[in-house]
Amino acid sequence: MTVSVDDVQRAVQRIAGRVRRTPVIEVAPGVTFKLELLQHTGSFKPRGAFNRLLTAKENGELGGPGIVAASGGNHGLAAAYAARELGVPARIFVPETTPAAKLGKLQTLGADIVQVGNEYAEAYQAALQAQSESGALLVHAYDQPEVVAGQGTVGLEILEQVGDFDTVLVAVGGGGLIGGIATAIGDNAQVVGVEPALAPTMNRALHAEQPTDGPVGGVAADSLGARRLGDLAFHAVQAHHVRSVLVDDESIVAARKQLWTTYHLATEHGGAVAWAALASGAYEPADGERVVVVVCGANTDPGTLT
Amino acid sequence: MTVSVDDVQRAVQRIAGRVRRTPVIEVAPGVTFKLELLQHTGSFKPRGAFNRLLTAKENGELGGPGIVAASGGNHGLAAAYAARELGVPARIFVPETTPAAKLGKLQTLGADIVQVGNEYAEAYQAALQAQSESGALLVHAYDQPEVVAGQGTVGLEILEQVGDFDTVLVAVGGGGLIGGIATAIGDNAQVVGVEPALAPTMNRALHAEQPTDGPVGGVAADSLGARRLGDLAFHAVQAHHVRSVLVDDESIVAARKQLWTTYHLATEHGGAVAWAALASGAYEPADGERVVVVVCGANTDPGTLT
Ligand SMILES: Cc1ncc(COP(=O)(O)O)c(C=O)c1O
Ligand SMILES: Cc1ncc(COP(=O)(O)O)c(C=O)c1O
Repeated sequence: MTVSVDDVQRAVQRIAGRVRRTPVIEVAPGVTFKLELLQHTGSFKPRGAFNRLLTAKENGELGGPGIVAASGGNHGLAAAYAARELGVPARIFVPETTPAAKLGKLQTLGADIVQVGNEYAEAYQAALQAQSESGALLVHAYDQPEVVAGQGTVGLEILEQVGDFDTVLVAVGGGGLIGGIATAIGDNAQVVGVEPALAPTMNRALHAEQPTDGPVGGVAADSLGARRLGDLAFHAVQAHHVRSVLVDDESIVAARKQLWTTYHLATEHGGAVAWAALASGAYEPADGERVVVVVCGANTDPGTLT
Repeated sequence: MTVSVDDVQRAVQRIAGRVRRTPVIEVAPGVTFKLELLQHTGSFKPRGAFNRLLTAKENGELGGPGIVAASGGNHGLAAAYAARELGVPARIFVPETTPAAKLGKLQTLGADIVQVGNEYAEAYQAALQAQSESGALLVHAYDQPEVVAGQGTVGLEILEQVGDFDTVLVAVGGGGLIGGIATAIGDNAQVVGVEPALAPTMNRALHAEQPTDGPVGGVAADSLGARRLGDLAFHAVQAHHVRSVLVDDESIVAARKQLWTTYHLATEHGGAVAWAALASGAYEPADGERVVVVVCGANTDPGTLT
């Protein structure tokens, strides 16, 4: 199964009016931020969630049992938000490790929240079981075509908003975001997936030539803590020759601090990972190369920014 | 002395490449934020500071003694930043009440910082004296034509970036920002000045038909704490029939919290004042009225956002 640019274009139509068109800002000559942290619920995740729920609704598959989702936090927020907007109940499974900043917001969205296990993968198993018992719609955090296509709308917006650019830097967890963006950008620019060295799902998949499980850790684990890359993402990053860059936790922490002190953006660690590649030198643009950095998550305790 | 839209247009040319073109985001149908908190140093103030310094430089008036400025914090940050970029020394006078978040940033900019008195007006007296002793260039926080014209570039950007709108909501301290924006917007839209009820410089000036001194207080005093409206601002707001709206401290505090929890923007109290008018209902748009809110300052201790 693959996702096409047509799927992404249809997602744009489907979710219009439900998601914010987030702005871009050129912060230095040739360096532009896509401010996707300003999306509803503080991350890009509502794009995929709305595309999944609205597609199901069109097909008569969104009914009384509502939805279930598993998430490190941001996907849960997005799924709960989309469900509330569409008037269906949501049951969200999150690991016990989900930070208070995310859990607190989730509680305000009226979803039924279940905390289980230590990482995303365990919450996902519980969600699968709940789905089969309840008949609710499963909204996957990254490995469903509607979800990947929804996240890809970030890429189409970048194409419209940033005149000329050579490269887009994107954080990778389960790969819904990079899979969608790579599909949307196609041959128009180089797409680079940036991952914490302690949670390199895409890097491992590219080396093994298939997604494989691995350990999950580091400061960004609550957003980039999938054990393996999704299959849809794998096909998309292979097809579009996405490059892989790893960053260490120290660089992520420094990049997040700099996003606050220099750029006045309050991000979570996962939201600073793409910028960390550029700021740390892990990704070195060529002379004159124009780079877009997707700043993708704001759900953090702001008291930890300074 | 007045400032014309031509002055603002010349300022755009002069400061191009020195300041960021900050983005806008439509957060709800008909409600658009101008994200001027993403400007260098975290407020719009570099626009006026660069226009003042670069004009002086063109005229051979920016020399070895560099600049002096008085400020509650943000103007000092901007003046110090502009001076550093142009390679001249800066001496910045701030009141003892300047918050740590602003003072800490100021210290990183290499300026000579002098803390004096309890409010902006006292720092200003000290800056005047230092100016006359040193021959440095005085960069006023709001009441110089180059400063007003520089801040007005925010207004021209709004005209370019937001297709159709009816109203702009702008926070007022000494009035450099509203004076510039009213001049730039002209007859294209209604301009509304929003002030804390505890520091209503513009409101008082409009009633008295001239700027008059008054007490300064409340949560936003470190940014909106001028004792009286500037003369240039007074002429501009009279000429353009700017409307006045007051907001109480409680509304400002609530608006700032909401900007963080709902819009993922970390602002200082002064940066949330314009939004407070809409959020609290102090300003009630007509049916279908399209409103632009200038979100203008990020220099805060983020630990106080939640
Ligand atoms: C802020 C943030 N950035 C990036 C990602 C990675 O997205 P994906 O799992 O689609 O690769 C996530 C996923 O939760 C996230 O929350
Ligand atoms: C964040 C912020 N908003 C608004 C203002 C008001 O600007 P003005 O003094 O030009 O009215 C200031 C002034 O310092 C400020 O720092």
